[in-house]
Amino acid sequence: MTRTVLESKTKTVVIGFDEPFCVIGERINPTGRKKLAAELEAGNFSTVEKDALEQVACGAMVLDINAGVVYNSNPDPNLTEPPLMTSMVQLVQGLVDVPLCIDSSVPGALKAGLEAAEGRPLLNSVTGEEERLELVLPLVKKYNVPVVAISNDDTGISEDPDVRFEVAKKIVQRAADFGIPAHDIVVDPLVMPIGAMATAGQQVFALVKRLREELGVNTTCGASNISFGLPNRHGINAAFLPMAISAGMTSAIMNPVRQVEMEAIRAANLLMNHDPNGGEWIRFSKVLEAVEGGMTFAEASAAQSSAASGRRGGRRARA
Amino acid sequence: MTRTVLESKTKTVVIGFDEPFCVIGERINPTGRKKLAAELEAGNFSTVEKDALEQVACGAMVLDINAGVVYNSNPDPNLTEPPLMTSMVQLVQGLVDVPLCIDSSVPGALKAGLEAAEGRPLLNSVTGEEERLELVLPLVKKYNVPVVAISNDDTGISEDPDVRFEVAKKIVQRAADFGIPAHDIVVDPLVMPIGAMATAGQQVFALVKRLREELGVNTTCGASNISFGLPNRHGINAAFLPMAISAGMTSAIMNPVRQVEMEAIRAANLLMNHDPNGGEWIRFSKVLEAVEGGMTFAEASAAQSSAASGRRGGRRARA
Repeated sequence: MTRTVLESKTKTVVIGFDEPFCVIGERINPTGRKKLAAELEAGNFSTVEKDALEQVACGAMVLDINAGVVYNSNPDPNLTEPPLMTSMVQLVQGLVDVPLCIDSSVPGALKAGLEAAEGRPLLNSVTGEEERLELVLPLVKKYNVPVVAISNDDTGISEDPDVRFEVAKKIVQRAADFGIPAHDIVVDPLVMPIGAMATAGQQVFALVKRLREELGVNTTCGASNISFGLPNRHGINAAFLPMAISAGMTSAIMNPVRQVEMEAIRAANLLMNHDPNGGEWIRFSKVLEAVEGGMTFAEASAAQSSAASGRRGGRRARA
Repeated sequence: MTRTVLESKTKTVVIGFDEPFCVIGERINPTGRKKLAAELEAGNFSTVEKDALEQVACGAMVLDINAGVVYNSNPDPNLTEPPLMTSMVQLVQGLVDVPLCIDSSVPGALKAGLEAAEGRPLLNSVTGEEERLELVLPLVKKYNVPVVAISNDDTGISEDPDVRFEVAKKIVQRAADFGIPAHDIVVDPLVMPIGAMATAGQQVFALVKRLREELGVNTTCGASNISFGLPNRHGINAAFLPMAISAGMTSAIMNPVRQVEMEAIRAANLLMNHDPNGGEWIRFSKVLEAVEGGMTFAEASAAQSSAASGRRGGRRARA
């Protein structure tokens, strides 16, 4: 079975066909978050701290770290991103024990993240573009880490799922030339908005099956793209995720602070027999009860997670 | 493609692989509803009327009619069920225009329902039990109606999905001996509680695929059974339904007055490309907005459905 092993200093997370769905928290990313970008430029990391703790409490198993700011004081990301990535990685791994996903389009920032990260982070990302393949695959090999492979290439993003499959296949083959095994490639088949392309859902489900059966790779996606432009997006996302999971999707880069989507994923884990005795579902139901009692999802999740670590601490102390 | 055609006097509903998921409203059923049973014994049909109108407004495309009462005044259902079935069928088809599903374990009540129903109702149900096969299949043939086939037989309900598949296959073959085509059999593969059997979800998904690919039949289920005994059942049902739909399930006998489940089904229709241009999803989102504004789901659905028939009426009047 395909197993993509990620590690922090102390914790191992496996993305795999027989594992619970891997939720990669997307929030630590200043892209499109002006307030966060301004805070980071001012050296203020309080939002990063909050996002790290909150996402893990809500169920993120991996945290994506993106340092994609464009500072007013220095518009060259090749200069500003690498040191910011180092600081963010160090900060986050000091706060939480989950593995990280080092996310950048700037080569220096990828390197800086790989240097700073303890354990075995996920690298995000390579594409089928020649320049990107030549740049990222040597890093993947050198640092012996898994990598997210996005199925677009120098011709852009194809609307034809067969073309996107071929791009993924090319990346897997090129990685093999570098000695990188397929189980260290996590393919993002690209989710199109269903409002713009009526076959977008069926495309993803079919692609995920082929990627799994023919290439033996794990998969990930930006799940919320499916509902772009439509009303009640949470409702669409919450049906899409279980359907994708049942087709074989093994992870998503997403916002774990959204209750509806997390509920759908936890229910899908139970239905896929990836939640022995329903223990996780029953624990999660208590969080939902606290939400009905008036807490936010993040508060209720944090309260339960600190209660659980208190219990664990107690057991350790008695041992 | 497999198409199971149901008709009321004026309306055709097709259960099929390329059709929106068919929601069969289950509420008109006195089993386990003591208050309703007492009302029916007293000749009071107000709950039946309310259930008929509410279920159709909320999105039921077919209504199940079950007259399974045990009267205090007369404990023999062979005597009491047939006339009650006749009254209920006549009442309901006078109120709403959807096809009906005639549901009974009493032969006389099945016949009475078939006689009273206009159009082409669904018969509920035959099993693999010899006595039941010999009793129900002639009715199916005589009245030329489709039938729900439940995959248990004289040995009971098997926990082995291969056995349940074989029971379904036997029913399809026996039906063929009567000249009944496979597209008029809607198989219920039987949904076990996931809390009691950890593989229950995967069993259903695999069975639905086999029933579709190997027998070419439509499928149905009592969806909510999957979550029996667990907390936050709606959350489990709302993930189960999209997963089952994506495996190929084409209908369910369920409570359409439950918002969470109906939202999951409508989103799954959109994601399966069974909702052209997302028109149904956008209309449904307006119902959800009204719910957020304080209405119940049934009220909001009824308000929108009467507004829509007003508009349709308006267009007809101008034509």
